[in-house]
Amino acid sequence: MTEDPLAETRSAKKLAASAERMALPENHLKHLIIRKHRFSELSASGGGLFLDFSRQRVDDDVMRQLYDLAAERAVQQQFNDMIRGGIVNRTENRAALHTAARDFSGQPVYVNDRDVMADIRRVCQEIRDFAAQIHAGELTGSTGKPFRHVVVIGIGGSYLGTEFAATAMQALADRDIELRFLSNVDIDCFGAIAGQVDPEATLWIVISKSYTTTETMANANLASDWIHRQGLNPEDHLVAVTSSGSPGDEPANPVRRVFHMFAFIGGRFSVTSAVGGVPLSLYLGYERFEKFLKGAHEMDRHAAEAPMETNLPLISALLGIWNNNFLGFPACATIPYSTPLAKLPAHIQQLYMESNGKAVTQDGRRVENETGVIVFGEPGTNAQHSFFQLAHQGRPFPIEFIGVVRPQHADYTNKSKGVTNHQELWANLIAQPRALACGTAGASHPAREFSGNRPSSVLLLSDLSPENIGRLLAFYEARTVYEAFIWDINPFDQFGVELGKTMASGLRKEMAEKNRDPGRVISTGDPISDAYLDIFFSGRV
Amino acid sequence: MTEDPLAETRSAKKLAASAERMALPENHLKHLIIRKHRFSELSASGGGLFLDFSRQRVDDDVMRQLYDLAAERAVQQQFNDMIRGGIVNRTENRAALHTAARDFSGQPVYVNDRDVMADIRRVCQEIRDFAAQIHAGELTGSTGKPFRHVVVIGIGGSYLGTEFAATAMQALADRDIELRFLSNVDIDCFGAIAGQVDPEATLWIVISKSYTTTETMANANLASDWIHRQGLNPEDHLVAVTSSGSPGDEPANPVRRVFHMFAFIGGRFSVTSAVGGVPLSLYLGYERFEKFLKGAHEMDRHAAEAPMETNLPLISALLGIWNNNFLGFPACATIPYSTPLAKLPAHIQQLYMESNGKAVTQDGRRVENETGVIVFGEPGTNAQHSFFQLAHQGRPFPIEFIGVVRPQHADYTNKSKGVTNHQELWANLIAQPRALACGTAGASHPAREFSGNRPSSVLLLSDLSPENIGRLLAFYEARTVYEAFIWDINPFDQFGVELGKTMASGLRKEMAEKNRDPGRVISTGDPISDAYLDIFFSGRV
Repeated sequence: MTEDPLAETRSAKKLAASAERMALPENHLKHLIIRKHRFSELSASGGGLFLDFSRQRVDDDVMRQLYDLAAERAVQQQFNDMIRGGIVNRTENRAALHTAARDFSGQPVYVNDRDVMADIRRVCQEIRDFAAQIHAGELTGSTGKPFRHVVVIGIGGSYLGTEFAATAMQALADRDIELRFLSNVDIDCFGAIAGQVDPEATLWIVISKSYTTTETMANANLASDWIHRQGLNPEDHLVAVTSSGSPGDEPANPVRRVFHMFAFIGGRFSVTSAVGGVPLSLYLGYERFEKFLKGAHEMDRHAAEAPMETNLPLISALLGIWNNNFLGFPACATIPYSTPLAKLPAHIQQLYMESNGKAVTQDGRRVENETGVIVFGEPGTNAQHSFFQLAHQGRPFPIEFIGVVRPQHADYTNKSKGVTNHQELWANLIAQPRALACGTAGASHPAREFSGNRPSSVLLLSDLSPENIGRLLAFYEARTVYEAFIWDINPFDQFGVELGKTMASGLRKEMAEKNRDPGRVISTGDPISDAYLDIFFSGRV
Repeated sequence: MTEDPLAETRSAKKLAASAERMALPENHLKHLIIRKHRFSELSASGGGLFLDFSRQRVDDDVMRQLYDLAAERAVQQQFNDMIRGGIVNRTENRAALHTAARDFSGQPVYVNDRDVMADIRRVCQEIRDFAAQIHAGELTGSTGKPFRHVVVIGIGGSYLGTEFAATAMQALADRDIELRFLSNVDIDCFGAIAGQVDPEATLWIVISKSYTTTETMANANLASDWIHRQGLNPEDHLVAVTSSGSPGDEPANPVRRVFHMFAFIGGRFSVTSAVGGVPLSLYLGYERFEKFLKGAHEMDRHAAEAPMETNLPLISALLGIWNNNFLGFPACATIPYSTPLAKLPAHIQQLYMESNGKAVTQDGRRVENETGVIVFGEPGTNAQHSFFQLAHQGRPFPIEFIGVVRPQHADYTNKSKGVTNHQELWANLIAQPRALACGTAGASHPAREFSGNRPSSVLLLSDLSPENIGRLLAFYEARTVYEAFIWDINPFDQFGVELGKTMASGLRKEMAEKNRDPGRVISTGDPISDAYLDIFFSGRV
């Protein structure tokens, strides 16, 4: 079966007709955006953020059809089912309760009839106590030196979101602790970090839900051995963030402290669990981590409760579906006009593409429509000097701009050309969506013409407070699952990573055999793999 | 006129027919790659690198048609015209001579009947002398402290390529100099860097061809003022890389030293000019920068002279055209299995998307075919734990894998699961193209099935020597212009960035007026822009 849940809706047909209508010359964005109330009608505040979608290729009819689509697909019911502990990750028979990690409502959240909130609160308290002890210098390395370097050993969801949050709040990091991330199994990652930190003052946080992630375990072993070779006790310098009962939770793997993560929170949704909690609390203080959680919680409530017409993540998801499945755009860029948000695109890339790069529905039918798009991005104005040439004159792709009203370093008032740097940044933030939408014609040379009609949104934060970073995180989490709910795909599994893992495992075994017996001739059954192994072991390209 | 140069070729029709043939089930990659000589037939060495395209969706017939296309479009003649100083940037009436920046042939290179090699050699000698003086502590800041921090102030092509090269060679940086990049006009960029460097030991390199780039000038003014406020003389702490005769070259803007860049080398192609030369020589020593140039020169010779069937950048460009214009892929990922190459995707993103995101041919006809694709990427294995779910089970996109046979930190021999970290990395590098190509069927659940037939290439470097980084840089430069030559677009201009600049300029003027007269009511003629200015000045979202 290939007929899919989106195609089966009544709204899909209407939206397809609207897409044809919006392609008419009179519906070029340059005509639409001059209408008087367009900005106020196609923008909304909620959950502490502001979304302007007045430069999307929509009108009132399209928006109404998109809201109808959301209603037909019952996406807000699905969202509320998720936050109440429903088994929304059906292929893995699990709940998806990242929202519970920052639930301050005081209400219980049940998974299989058990309230999980006590466990969540316990882990938060453990993180708070641990961070306080480290910051007070009560917990130190083997030689009594206070910890000044924290290295997170984790990959994918065990680091991308934390890296985003830590980078966004870097200006607030006042605990005299440097934070680094050791993600890749590439030995040049470990080598570079080992050359930068003081072993006696370094705490390594090993993050793996299963404590079997190959890359993370290889790096944890390297770190442990390296600590030992510095004459220190690895147990003093390692902590684990892992599931209860995993190998990392066992006395056979002694570490300074173990913080639990839960089966009902997936890696790419885990920033507000101990995965982000331990490193962010050490880096920024627990109090700021809690503010970050509270911001995320506020956005969760908004996503669950706000009417569709003012529901920011839902509107953003619907526009994603519109641009992808009806206007045919295969990609979307996220461009934060704020360098502290530089790591947001990489986080969203995982969050969105791993969640929504799926081929089958929850009940195993092949999806007829395209699912998730390619997501990429860099900060503006940098991106203007990089790939915006293609955005303006090459193949079009929708862009989500992000603006921050007040910068972290607001104390610089120098002016160039009569404006501050922050004003210059905003002049560009305001100009780009307009230039993309309007285009221009009648230029002196065809190479100077712009076709325009290129859609974009703008998401605004008042500042980079921990609360706002939490809101931003939760906005993208909610937006991601809302798109999945429209297609009826499962945003919480990731079977697509398994085949490569299995094949790598076979190759690893061959390499391990060859390490034991250098004379061994490798034959994997695949002549191309054999050729690569020959290059590798001979060292000759 | 929209009929375009690619569509006009005889080969294009044949390639379109081949695309239909390759879509047949019997031409699924899983069948193609088991053929005995496929790897040796569809791989090539040259210019010091190795390219394997055996997992691209091609066969001998497709490759022959692609070579015919290259011959029809006379792309090697165009390349040779470029390196000999022909006016290949026709809209701007300029040569494009990045290759001359690393030409060690001893032959003259004429632009408008003038040999430019003497100027190029002079600048190299100035860079060599300057770096030696800094490293010897002969040139110091105002207080006599040796320089330990170098901050590059530049945006787009004035920094992305240098950042890539510096990051790739970071393990070789033995001159006790830390290198930072101040690119974005965002005040949080400057604020973060100002908090990290020792003013007395910091040298700022302002890089702008015109010395009018708004972001760069705003940051240079900030830096100059900041240096002054530390009680230091800005002239001692600033150098400029700019065109002869630009404002940065004038006595009115006194700096420690000026290094010239030339009109015939564009920003995104300028890494091997003084743009990369000054910072890289300070960071790594001039000798390593020269080795980097020599590697690039070797690849240039290869790209110019090697027969099409073994010409790596040309083959890569032809496969790009095939995947884009005939198989319909709108994007391409670059995945280096080497963390030191982490900044390569961002560099290529600019190099490729700014060069090839064009809508008109050199003579101003609208291009009928799609031009440049979207380029993005992250290092592997990180990317496997991020967006590879979508690569395996979502919408397909071609991937260019990059492998490095010997890592920089080869001294770690610890093993996990019987293999070193570098072996684990390679097991994954070998596994991923195979998994993407083969796929699998008959899984226990539809969510565990893989359709396969997803194309990829692998580019191999023997190690991360300066020569190899130079080869890699020149490979991507040549590949980029070869694609442009097929479409007959101009890869050297960037008029697509102008409209946004013009609009930002208008907004800046309004903001500057408002700074002078806070009571002023702004009215730009665009109600949406007015709304944003109101948000900005009121501080209320």
